Amino acid sequence: PPPPPQPPGLPLAPRRAFSNNKILVELDESSGIATMKFKSPPVNSLSLDFLTEFCISLEKLENDRACRGVILTSAIPKIFSSGLDITEMCGKSMEHYAEFWRAVQEMWLRLYGSNMVTVAAVNGSSPAGGCLVALSCDYRIMVENPKFSIGLNEAQLGIVAPFWFKDTFVNVVGHRIAECSLQLGSLHPTPEAHRFGLVDELVPEDKLQEKAVAVMAQWLALPNHARQLTKSMMRKAVLDRLVAHREEDIQNFISFISKESIQKSLRMYMEMLKKKK
Amino acid sequence: PPPPPQPPGLPLAPRRAFSNNKILVELDESSGIATMKFKSPPVNSLSLDFLTEFCISLEKLENDRACRGVILTSAIPKIFSSGLDITEMCGKSMEHYAEFWRAVQEMWLRLYGSNMVTVAAVNGSSPAGGCLVALSCDYRIMVENPKFSIGLNEAQLGIVAPFWFKDTFVNVVGHRIAECSLQLGSLHPTPEAHRFGLVDELVPEDKLQEKAVAVMAQWLALPNHARQLTKSMMRKAVLDRLVAHREEDIQNFISFISKESIQKSLRMYMEMLKKKK
Amino acid sequence: PPPPPQPPGLPLAPRRAFSNNKILVELDESSGIATMKFKSPPVNSLSLDFLTEFCISLEKLENDRACRGVILTSAIPKIFSSGLDITEMCGKSMEHYAEFWRAVQEMWLRLYGSNMVTVAAVNGSSPAGGCLVALSCDYRIMVENPKFSIGLNEAQLGIVAPFWFKDTFVNVVGHRIAECSLQLGSLHPTPEAHRFGLVDELVPEDKLQEKAVAVMAQWLALPNHARQLTKSMMRKAVLDRLVAHREEDIQNFISFISKESIQKSLRMYMEMLKKKK
Repeated sequence: PPPPPQPPGLPLAPRRAFSNNKILVELDESSGIATMKFKSPPVNSLSLDFLTEFCISLEKLENDRACRGVILTSAIPKIFSSGLDITEMCGKSMEHYAEFWRAVQEMWLRLYGSNMVTVAAVNGSSPAGGCLVALSCDYRIMVENPKFSIGLNEAQLGIVAPFWFKDTFVNVVGHRIAECSLQLGSLHPTPEAHRFGLVDELVPEDKLQEKAVAVMAQWLALPNHARQLTKSMMRKAVLDRLVAHREEDIQNFISFISKESIQKSLRMYMEMLKKKK
Repeated sequence: PPPPPQPPGLPLAPRRAFSNNKILVELDESSGIATMKFKSPPVNSLSLDFLTEFCISLEKLENDRACRGVILTSAIPKIFSSGLDITEMCGKSMEHYAEFWRAVQEMWLRLYGSNMVTVAAVNGSSPAGGCLVALSCDYRIMVENPKFSIGLNEAQLGIVAPFWFKDTFVNVVGHRIAECSLQLGSLHPTPEAHRFGLVDELVPEDKLQEKAVAVMAQWLALPNHARQLTKSMMRKAVLDRLVAHREEDIQNFISFISKESIQKSLRMYMEMLKKKK
Repeated sequence: PPPPPQPPGLPLAPRRAFSNNKILVELDESSGIATMKFKSPPVNSLSLDFLTEFCISLEKLENDRACRGVILTSAIPKIFSSGLDITEMCGKSMEHYAEFWRAVQEMWLRLYGSNMVTVAAVNGSSPAGGCLVALSCDYRIMVENPKFSIGLNEAQLGIVAPFWFKDTFVNVVGHRIAECSLQLGSLHPTPEAHRFGLVDELVPEDKLQEKAVAVMAQWLALPNHARQLTKSMMRKAVLDRLVAHREEDIQNFISFISKESIQKSLRMYMEMLKKKK
């Protein structure tokens, strides 16, 4: 049920904010809608610290009865999230790789399996892990800017998206488009991403927040319990698959990422990024 | 092969009809096409009686060598079927819930697994279980009327479509559209339903019968045996899944539907429907 | 990396060709792109000899480090491949049926599972097994000619596409279109095939070769190892399913094809084809 209108003269509905280092979280208690705003310069990369903070923030909201939905967006211009932080995968110990990968898994398990309504308000480019974050939400709205692109471009870096990135992607765009896009490591400009359903809607940048709230209101109009059970029915098979193979997936990641050839291509990629600046 | 033309002066091809209470069944022996016309006022809801009659009628046709295809349609203006009869799910005994749910399962198992060609001629709105009936056919033709809508809107009522409704839906529209539509409990106006393949074709109301017969003729032109084996290959996995979990699915339904919170929201929904009239 | 430009005056990049009876194979070592050109008149049907030569040629290329991609096309006007050779399925011994079917399986396992980039340059009609060959590639380009058609039309002949034809088809066009198309045994004219993704691109006949090379270059720009692992991740489930049921699938084929009713309808079909000429 919609909240009762505010009696005139009373204070506005409470608006709680808790800002940590890398994500600004605001909860509007009147609507039940929280916003998680990524603010980890330069490009909101998914470092171990970012992922840890992401999971803690999401869990807090999940357990907060005042919160029913969360909007994910970026506080940094032109970038939603650049994806997994390559420095976490380069020249580190096996223990570090394991810890990092477990945190990536944890982020996805919590977000894809969230009981809340999750809307990605994608206000910038969103490659690789950034795309996964968007794909894991219930709905994706992206700023209509042909310079922004989104996609699981791991193959371009010489690495392979894990099976649960793939499963999430297939659930959104279907097998054929996923097969092509993953093999080519495609970064899709917004109009193309919209055409085949990788994002649900395009809006001008100044309408993004408004649109995200409107979509959220539509989803929150449904009875919580029925919506949550339905969501779980749609996503359980894919979530269960990672849960069943979690340790194996960590071992696969470690043995892949610690190959000298992979380390070398990641180092080359990082140097290329540095030169670009 | 098409039937030979009728010699002039001879009686028309035999046309057998057996009408029970809720469904009028006619079989045109010359073409091998039967029609099952729902005539259970006010809204063709799927009551236990309706479902029982549906299964008996379908089985008769299935075993009748003169019949190769069946067109499902409604004798009631503006409504194809309103779906499961809520009165069967409200304030009844556990035994009744079990019997009712088994009948719903039976209807789907027989229709989705039918060896005949099944065409839904959807001449009115078709929410929830009514949509499932249409989804279970081989082909869906709907009257081009933006006032008519179709969809699995269970979530709107605070209930959850069972997994085999979902599986049937995903097989028609794909995972992403099903996920959105089921969570929002969407009732799609005909043009939208057509756009994403929930119905295959739209026609003006006065062309519906003609179109259904034409589509049927196209499907009946194929060798029966090859078509049936192909259909079974496409649908077997999803049918087997319910067969394997049938009792469990009944228990789930009973324990869900007999919750006081669910009973309450169903009662509220029924009262809302009454006031609407 | 693109090959360095040829210094003027030096011989052209080596171009090896090995032509057997039914398939002309050419490898351009400078680009790493091979072409397999079907030249088995009148209609490139997939006979036991053709299939054997196909597998040997593909294996040679697979093991040749100079080769990274292969373009499949036809040397015969208006036909890509007419599909399985019906004479191999008619009036032969059980042993022959088993040997033939194993060769069909082998062709698919090698092509669908190939580590190379595979592009189908479909320059003519491509029914049944011919369509499977195209479906098993990474990308399909077809000549824009409404007289050419493509599809798994087995049902028209009274036979049933095996489950792995179906799985391959579903992976490309999705469940719903596959269900309809397989049951109707549809042969889709090129514009329709393109509309629902059965082919990825249409080009005028004189641009086909150029386009195929351009697409190949795009796919070969990706690091081999990452692309191959990604391809395998997308296709493994469906490949494994045939590997696990291979003998059973052969037995099914034999017992189906040796039915008198099936033999009769194949003989009728062959006579119809002869009269057509």
